[in-house]
Amino acid sequence: MTSSSDTPRRGSLASALGRFHAVIPAGGVGTRLWPLSRADAPKFLHDLTGSGSTLIRSTYERLLPLAQKNVMVVTGEAHRGAVTGQIPELDQGDLVLEPEPKDSAAAIGLAAAILHARDQAASRTGAEGTIMGSFAADHVIAPDSVFQDAVRQAVATAAENKIVTIGIKPTHPSTGFGYIRTGAGYTVPDAPDALHVVEFVEKPGEAAAQEYVDSGNYLWNAGMFVAPVSLMLDHLAAAEPDLHAGLTEIAAAWGTDGEDATLHRVWPTLPKTAIDYAVAEPAADAGDVAVIPGRFTWDDVGDFAALARLNPAAQQESMTVLGKRARVYSEDSSGVVVSDSQRVVALIGVENIVVVDTEDALLVTTTDHAQSVKKAVEALKEKGDSDVL
Amino acid sequence: MTSSSDTPRRGSLASALGRFHAVIPAGGVGTRLWPLSRADAPKFLHDLTGSGSTLIRSTYERLLPLAQKNVMVVTGEAHRGAVTGQIPELDQGDLVLEPEPKDSAAAIGLAAAILHARDQAASRTGAEGTIMGSFAADHVIAPDSVFQDAVRQAVATAAENKIVTIGIKPTHPSTGFGYIRTGAGYTVPDAPDALHVVEFVEKPGEAAAQEYVDSGNYLWNAGMFVAPVSLMLDHLAAAEPDLHAGLTEIAAAWGTDGEDATLHRVWPTLPKTAIDYAVAEPAADAGDVAVIPGRFTWDDVGDFAALARLNPAAQQESMTVLGKRARVYSEDSSGVVVSDSQRVVALIGVENIVVVDTEDALLVTTTDHAQSVKKAVEALKEKGDSDVL
Repeated sequence: MTSSSDTPRRGSLASALGRFHAVIPAGGVGTRLWPLSRADAPKFLHDLTGSGSTLIRSTYERLLPLAQKNVMVVTGEAHRGAVTGQIPELDQGDLVLEPEPKDSAAAIGLAAAILHARDQAASRTGAEGTIMGSFAADHVIAPDSVFQDAVRQAVATAAENKIVTIGIKPTHPSTGFGYIRTGAGYTVPDAPDALHVVEFVEKPGEAAAQEYVDSGNYLWNAGMFVAPVSLMLDHLAAAEPDLHAGLTEIAAAWGTDGEDATLHRVWPTLPKTAIDYAVAEPAADAGDVAVIPGRFTWDDVGDFAALARLNPAAQQESMTVLGKRARVYSEDSSGVVVSDSQRVVALIGVENIVVVDTEDALLVTTTDHAQSVKKAVEALKEKGDSDVL
Repeated sequence: MTSSSDTPRRGSLASALGRFHAVIPAGGVGTRLWPLSRADAPKFLHDLTGSGSTLIRSTYERLLPLAQKNVMVVTGEAHRGAVTGQIPELDQGDLVLEPEPKDSAAAIGLAAAILHARDQAASRTGAEGTIMGSFAADHVIAPDSVFQDAVRQAVATAAENKIVTIGIKPTHPSTGFGYIRTGAGYTVPDAPDALHVVEFVEKPGEAAAQEYVDSGNYLWNAGMFVAPVSLMLDHLAAAEPDLHAGLTEIAAAWGTDGEDATLHRVWPTLPKTAIDYAVAEPAADAGDVAVIPGRFTWDDVGDFAALARLNPAAQQESMTVLGKRARVYSEDSSGVVVSDSQRVVALIGVENIVVVDTEDALLVTTTDHAQSVKKAVEALKEKGDSDVL
């Protein structure tokens, strides 16, 4: 059924999407996935779902229909080759290489600053400026179409000059994620699901998490932000003026002969902070944040326990086996085996076991202890075993 | 304090010991110790106690003070190089190589037959003939001096024309060993501990095992036999005439040009049976068996659970780590790690775990399931993974 009101709304969404530029921050080693994930082979460079595609490639392909190749990746200098190998289509100017890790506010802020500088160079202002959408390189999302619908609604809402996050409906009272407290609905054309955000709340304790889930008014914060770059930068300038000034200086030199020198001079001086503190929380306090509840399944693959969930097809009876060459024999056992070799792995009488078998390091733990892997990595670093980290 | 009766007794023991020839059957892969123990590197070729010495070398050195280099090893043809590498002192004529495994009656029986043929060639008869003592190559015993005292008593008792076993005082109601039911004491000079054997009993159920231990009249059968070779062969001839005939034929050719041809022609035709059935049990029924209760500690290293017991010095907090190069990190974990590499092995939240990390195979199980390793090996064989067995 068509009505006269359809035309302007569709035009409005199309125009908003025309301003859209996806940003993929590809940082974070994924320490809880050690020894699979390493400093030189972080989580986003792995295929953790048996899809045949790395997480960053899947993220890129998921955004492509919306962004029309307007995709920027922000990653560490060490990953230049790996990232361009995964996304050969990436424009050289859309590959932003951090000289060192500086947390998410600097990474996403630099993307915003560069995109904003391009807007200014092209004399795009206000309602014409770029709407960025930032999505981590190492999350697993399905189905793509439902995610894309949420992003479209987020872009439509962002076009109303809002910072828009996409929240995840909690499936359990997780204490591992931050939460988003939702308020009343927005009346945004093309974004029927949009809600006001009352506040962002930090990772809760168990009791609070249960309350949040029971209330129905909370979503998981998956770190997805869609917003006009100008609005992102306004909030960043207010909350983190030094960071904003530094990023603006780098962005001004971006694409010029001075780019490299400026980046390497300014970047090390920038403060380390999370985008949540630097932008999202103050913006929410200012009433500038909306949320689209995501109806897709989402997993940040936070630890090895996630791999069993994410790979139902890899189940051999009660064991999930990742690694095409692995020869796994299991008896009275359950859990996950990840192997990059063709060694025989024999498991007898071990329940909920996690075995990660790599060339120079072996991890044996249980799905219940999967979150403790980070602690082991820290201890190994202290012991001087960094060669395997 | 010396007395006139000391002299003949000492002379009698010295004369019995002069007839002693130790036999070390070195067979059995030690399947429950896979993947450490393999067809081409069986249990007896490993140092499982951190002593710096393989089990077969330790066995040899334990017997040397009693046997004065009169030591014979019976092993598979494949282990010729490994065994002579471990015991370079071994006389060529004392290395007996089985063309294929034929169980303990054939292995020990062949040793008896060869030693008996030598006696005949040297015209040693009756009370001058060789007293053999058979001791497995892959058991752990300490202290050596207490073991040697038991063997001396066994030799003294064997000189009375008895088959003498050395039994082990049970430390728990094991269902994994056969038991020896003891009777009244013998009055043998130089063997104050000698007892009659009423019967050998098979591995019992739990209730029976508990009864045996509670009664105080049962010892574990550790498969140690000390006896005049002529008496061993008399019982073998009665219980297994075909086996006896075959072994006698091989022994007659031993050391001649026909040795190899005879061995390879006759050996494959021999019946497979255990020395317990072929000699010990019928001899006990005939009242011909005595036992010396061993007061030494004894471990047949039946599975990986044994390794924790046997290597108190290798404990890193609650983990026992075997493998000098292994870099083991453990947290909230206990059990055993065996590694032949310098890979990092990280263990988190796994109790009573057994991890055996070899180049081409990895085993993860628990000390409670250590006995099930054999089943895994059988399953791998069936699956066609024999390259790692």
